[in-house]
Amino acid sequence: MKIVGRSVERTDAVAKVTGAGMFITDFSLPGMLFGKTLRSPHSHARIVNIDSTKALALPGVKAVLTHENTPRKRFNTSATMTFTVPNTKPVLDQRIFDDHVRYVGDEVAAVAAVSEEIAEQALKLIQVDYELLPAVYDPLLAMESAALPIHPCREGKNIPGNIVRILYNDIDKGFEKSDVIVEGTFKLPVQKQAQLETQAALANADANGNLTVWSTTQTPHPTKIILSAVFGIANSKIRVLNPPYVGGGFGVRIGCSAKAEPIAAALSLATRKPVKIVYSREEDFIASDTRHGGYVFVRLGAARDGTFQALELKGILNAGAYCSFSVETPGVLGAMGLAVYCIPHANYYGHSVYTNTTPAGAFRGFGNTQAMSAIESAVDMMAAKLGIDALELRLKNIIKVGDPWCLPYPCQSTGLAECIKEGAKRIGWEERGKRITNDPHKRRGIGMGVSTHVSNSWPFCVDYDNAIITMQQDGSMQLAVGVPEIGCGSATTLAQLAAEILGVSFKRISVVQGDTAATPFDIGSHASRTLYAAGTAVLAAAQQLKREILQYAAEEYHISVEKLDIIDGVIKDIKSEGVFVELNEFVWQAHLRNRQFIGIGQTVPGNAPPWQAHFAEIEVDLTTGKIDVLKIVAAHDVGKAVNPQIVEGQIEGGVLMGVGYATTEEIRYDTKGRQQSYNYHNYMLPTAADRPEIEAVIIETCDPSGPLGAKGVGETGTTPTPAAIMNAVYDALGIRFMELPLNQERVYRAIKRLEERV
Amino acid sequence: MKIVGRSVERTDAVAKVTGAGMFITDFSLPGMLFGKTLRSPHSHARIVNIDSTKALALPGVKAVLTHENTPRKRFNTSATMTFTVPNTKPVLDQRIFDDHVRYVGDEVAAVAAVSEEIAEQALKLIQVDYELLPAVYDPLLAMESAALPIHPCREGKNIPGNIVRILYNDIDKGFEKSDVIVEGTFKLPVQKQAQLETQAALANADANGNLTVWSTTQTPHPTKIILSAVFGIANSKIRVLNPPYVGGGFGVRIGCSAKAEPIAAALSLATRKPVKIVYSREEDFIASDTRHGGYVFVRLGAARDGTFQALELKGILNAGAYCSFSVETPGVLGAMGLAVYCIPHANYYGHSVYTNTTPAGAFRGFGNTQAMSAIESAVDMMAAKLGIDALELRLKNIIKVGDPWCLPYPCQSTGLAECIKEGAKRIGWEERGKRITNDPHKRRGIGMGVSTHVSNSWPFCVDYDNAIITMQQDGSMQLAVGVPEIGCGSATTLAQLAAEILGVSFKRISVVQGDTAATPFDIGSHASRTLYAAGTAVLAAAQQLKREILQYAAEEYHISVEKLDIIDGVIKDIKSEGVFVELNEFVWQAHLRNRQFIGIGQTVPGNAPPWQAHFAEIEVDLTTGKIDVLKIVAAHDVGKAVNPQIVEGQIEGGVLMGVGYATTEEIRYDTKGRQQSYNYHNYMLPTAADRPEIEAVIIETCDPSGPLGAKGVGETGTTPTPAAIMNAVYDALGIRFMELPLNQERVYRAIKRLEERV
Repeated sequence: MKIVGRSVERTDAVAKVTGAGMFITDFSLPGMLFGKTLRSPHSHARIVNIDSTKALALPGVKAVLTHENTPRKRFNTSATMTFTVPNTKPVLDQRIFDDHVRYVGDEVAAVAAVSEEIAEQALKLIQVDYELLPAVYDPLLAMESAALPIHPCREGKNIPGNIVRILYNDIDKGFEKSDVIVEGTFKLPVQKQAQLETQAALANADANGNLTVWSTTQTPHPTKIILSAVFGIANSKIRVLNPPYVGGGFGVRIGCSAKAEPIAAALSLATRKPVKIVYSREEDFIASDTRHGGYVFVRLGAARDGTFQALELKGILNAGAYCSFSVETPGVLGAMGLAVYCIPHANYYGHSVYTNTTPAGAFRGFGNTQAMSAIESAVDMMAAKLGIDALELRLKNIIKVGDPWCLPYPCQSTGLAECIKEGAKRIGWEERGKRITNDPHKRRGIGMGVSTHVSNSWPFCVDYDNAIITMQQDGSMQLAVGVPEIGCGSATTLAQLAAEILGVSFKRISVVQGDTAATPFDIGSHASRTLYAAGTAVLAAAQQLKREILQYAAEEYHISVEKLDIIDGVIKDIKSEGVFVELNEFVWQAHLRNRQFIGIGQTVPGNAPPWQAHFAEIEVDLTTGKIDVLKIVAAHDVGKAVNPQIVEGQIEGGVLMGVGYATTEEIRYDTKGRQQSYNYHNYMLPTAADRPEIEAVIIETCDPSGPLGAKGVGETGTTPTPAAIMNAVYDALGIRFMELPLNQERVYRAIKRLEERV
Repeated sequence: MKIVGRSVERTDAVAKVTGAGMFITDFSLPGMLFGKTLRSPHSHARIVNIDSTKALALPGVKAVLTHENTPRKRFNTSATMTFTVPNTKPVLDQRIFDDHVRYVGDEVAAVAAVSEEIAEQALKLIQVDYELLPAVYDPLLAMESAALPIHPCREGKNIPGNIVRILYNDIDKGFEKSDVIVEGTFKLPVQKQAQLETQAALANADANGNLTVWSTTQTPHPTKIILSAVFGIANSKIRVLNPPYVGGGFGVRIGCSAKAEPIAAALSLATRKPVKIVYSREEDFIASDTRHGGYVFVRLGAARDGTFQALELKGILNAGAYCSFSVETPGVLGAMGLAVYCIPHANYYGHSVYTNTTPAGAFRGFGNTQAMSAIESAVDMMAAKLGIDALELRLKNIIKVGDPWCLPYPCQSTGLAECIKEGAKRIGWEERGKRITNDPHKRRGIGMGVSTHVSNSWPFCVDYDNAIITMQQDGSMQLAVGVPEIGCGSATTLAQLAAEILGVSFKRISVVQGDTAATPFDIGSHASRTLYAAGTAVLAAAQQLKREILQYAAEEYHISVEKLDIIDGVIKDIKSEGVFVELNEFVWQAHLRNRQFIGIGQTVPGNAPPWQAHFAEIEVDLTTGKIDVLKIVAAHDVGKAVNPQIVEGQIEGGVLMGVGYATTEEIRYDTKGRQQSYNYHNYMLPTAADRPEIEAVIIETCDPSGPLGAKGVGETGTTPTPAAIMNAVYDALGIRFMELPLNQERVYRAIKRLEERV
């Protein structure tokens, strides 16, 4: 391959690096108003009365919206309402504004005004009378019958949607056959995506009844469908687009960007002016999806020789106040948790529970991070109990091609064994338990974790892709594809795929993304699917386009089409390499004969497992409890690395999120349900100084289902990282932590308890 | 037909009527600069020196561009360089800036600054030293060998491109066979399009090397190709779009909007900031295309019984200083002039001539207005000489289906006879020569003129259309088509065509137009082609989409696809009218099964002659020479009126332009080549008060080549209007004017001369 596999420079590099790239905050329209949202100070309450009179009277205020004057239609800001598979019903538990607020930060009212300052001022003039209701913050407590129902729901225990059950043979028989059993319940924290750009939208409802929304969404097409449902406007009259740059996603805006789009749209429809809403960082924290915290119970049984016999897994996740992917996340937790090892008997039970906290939703790893933090800890516990090397134990039990597994698509490739071996070599696995430091107050340890993930969301939900490549009159090409570029580099890698097929420089291909008016439907950029899934449509479009061109050339040169190819921008005889014509010239001549070549690809992509083995080396300061993650080796089976540098970037970013999850990051609430960590001063993100050395190792297996062999890499950097760190900490201290993050306080106390016991 | 043929409300009606619609002047980007252009005060000169130092030193000035620091590539602001047929070469005689200025208003330099005021101020600080050259303003003089070559050109006589020759049998033999011959040379004025919105562009060259240009162009795709050629940027990296509204075109921006796009783009590339250029009305007059003035010689021979035998036609047009459609306009003048009547022997010779005046280019009627003003006067002269009623003479000689004619496509329909008869009835033709007034100082007269025109530019140049209809998930549809909506109503009528085929309400179809990133190639909105030509692609796309839907439904319902149809938004059994499913629901279910329906239409539309007969009633004030046009009956064979009200609007607008051309409008130059009429105070546009009663009569012949029978109507309101007025004036006064416009001064003097002679 000529272009695929090369680390060509990202097409958005200069704009991003120089700060010239346009994001919503940079962007304004003539006559634009500024929207601000009034949020509930209470974690659970009914609104008895709202008086907007004073706010409306403030000069410069153009509209005040509350539950009394906005559409009452129930919806879901997450894209679940557009993704749903047939025969299931999405949970629609949100309104733009409701007379019932369910968490601190819940939307009560919004103002559009000529300046941000006036809008802020107006918020203070809205008088709201609340009737306070009892609140509950822990998912286990919220399931108890005494807890107030936060929403009416089928299970009657604050459980939204279906309970996920995966049964695989006979779990009881499995444990009967097990010589050794380990088990434990892991308590996992609420993590924040902390994407660079906060939630934002700029809506413009025009005089002809069209609604255009510039948005930070990861899924412009589904977001269009959501807005269509909320406002009763035809899909075709709504346009959702990125402006074009988006400052990251990590799952936080699959569907709407929290409520930025619906509120901006409602204000624009009310005022008939463009309205921009940009969440403050605090709003983004308190009123925008987080990762699901909660509890994962794991019970693992093995024969004396280490052969796994049974795995019981249970996930009870904290949904927060609304159901954003709170059915799907426990599903992925179970499916991915059961997919790594070949275990004859397995059982999963999982669901989420409403509480009066910020809604939890999609987040890089999507349940899998929670699953593997627990499972990979348990595998280490098992290795210790069996006296078998933890690496050997994994190699013995991991899924191989052809093994039965629980997922509804085949495992056609796995490089996990190679990842484990190569990663072990790079970290120096043989020194596990022997790494020493010169400082007597410090201890070092090595740990590992493995995982798999999806490359797409098919067949778990609606999932298809379209791409159109339009030949330009000078032989350059425009590729229109519905997935947006939210920072993953897909504008570059999708062009590489097309260029590879079309035999031209990838610089000749410009990509139009993230604009529902310019691209056909695509479910969007999430589920590690952007390159893998949209890539199949790009490939199909490129192949069709090439056929069209060569067919036309075959007629022109009176030669069989099979004998022609495009090589380095030239139409050649495939055998003799005889040159017929430069593609550019050929295309211009076709234009002069009234012909434009257009290729369309419409695909329902499959799914494929990427595999990853992470190795962590950490150092613990015994006097402070502080953990330094020194190095992460991340060995990944990525199928085919279309752009290795972009793959490494994805892995490195994912690893750092895993490091934060394992060591410092956590959203905590006070007793009244108020977040105690709502900005970068008090939410402990790893900084550049905390960044370990990260060695990304790329293993290529070329999955037959992926475009030119590629698999998904968007989330896999995160999934096995916490477990590798947890296991390294055990290696260093001999302490098995069952709760994350391993922050200084927790680690220090554990060390103290151990010392006291000793 | 259910929707086609109905005067549904225009989809842009509210935005236009309320003033909410966005045009380039309304629009700004963050950090945007304002561009202003320094123009030559001399009609012909060489630039000896330019000093920008002082201008650049002015605070707020970000760039000053001259011929010394902009691309030197020769191009053509008109779209001819992208339209050209194989084996002909477009005339590329322009540069962004040159060291040779050729008319008063020619571009010398441009400034980008943080405000319009500073940019204006900076222009005054640019010091230019000119070496004056001899100038020539009349095309006949410019052809003489003594005239300085304005451009080096093949003919050596300031003639750009090819001379057009149309020979039809033997002209000498034709005149030999003629019993009566009339002839004359008509001198025709320079008219201004006077479109509501002046030329404008907003260019944004981004950090990644992409160039986006919001433009007032009538042809976004060709404009993209022009900019690509000028700046050496790949087509795919350039996006040209309307914002979306454009304040009319009438031919003035087929290609670039004068130089608004290239200059704005050059300034943006130099500053890496968005730069907006909006022409003042004066700039629009002096430095933006006009209609071609010039000379039309006509010689017509007939047998005693009135049968036309020979027509000799010659057109010498004033190209102005650059060649914008100055090869094509004489071509259409000849082709249309020869296409109305069945004349066995005909001959046309025509070309343009460079002069040191504002460039002339495309203008509603495009040479045909010039041709028919002369020819229809000659036919009246012939009728008078033969003593045959002018109406009867026309009826006797007009082309019928099957007659031989000079055009390279067949005449498959003509309703001209019906137009003549119906129009005559409405104006009261039998009273010709007998209309009297109560005021002895006034005289009334009735006259008529007929014409045909094109519905498209095929096969005279590159001409093709693409359309893509994308089914939305709620059954609404998005129609993407490369022709822009420049005010003609195509966003409405193209949706009507698609809705008719697809069996849904036209409100379910939203149209994306005028954006090269969102639509495949189309040569644009001109040549009366928008509905006729793009309509064929829309029809093809709708048919393909419908097939896709019904094929899927046939599989779903196990029924043969031929038995299914979509009727009023419901998929039904075509015979029994049995309902299978609502289209909306069907499409949503297909979405849930991962299917989106997309229809593509790629067509090379044909061409068809619309026909028109205009009747004018006028009143002349003998004491002032003022002509009041009292009434115009405009009977038009439009093929099929897709939206009759929009057709009437096109006809009425065209008629008024013809009234202005005939009576008041003219750009005149002083002896130094400076326009004497450069704004609405001194250029005499007809006002609302001057508007005659206009009775548009629609005759439908349903041409087989047009979409559902439609033909072009964009230009036809203009073409026969001046002749009808000229002939009415002859009826009133007995004076045959050979020069337009028939302004008060000219008419008064003629009346005086007549009175003196009498």
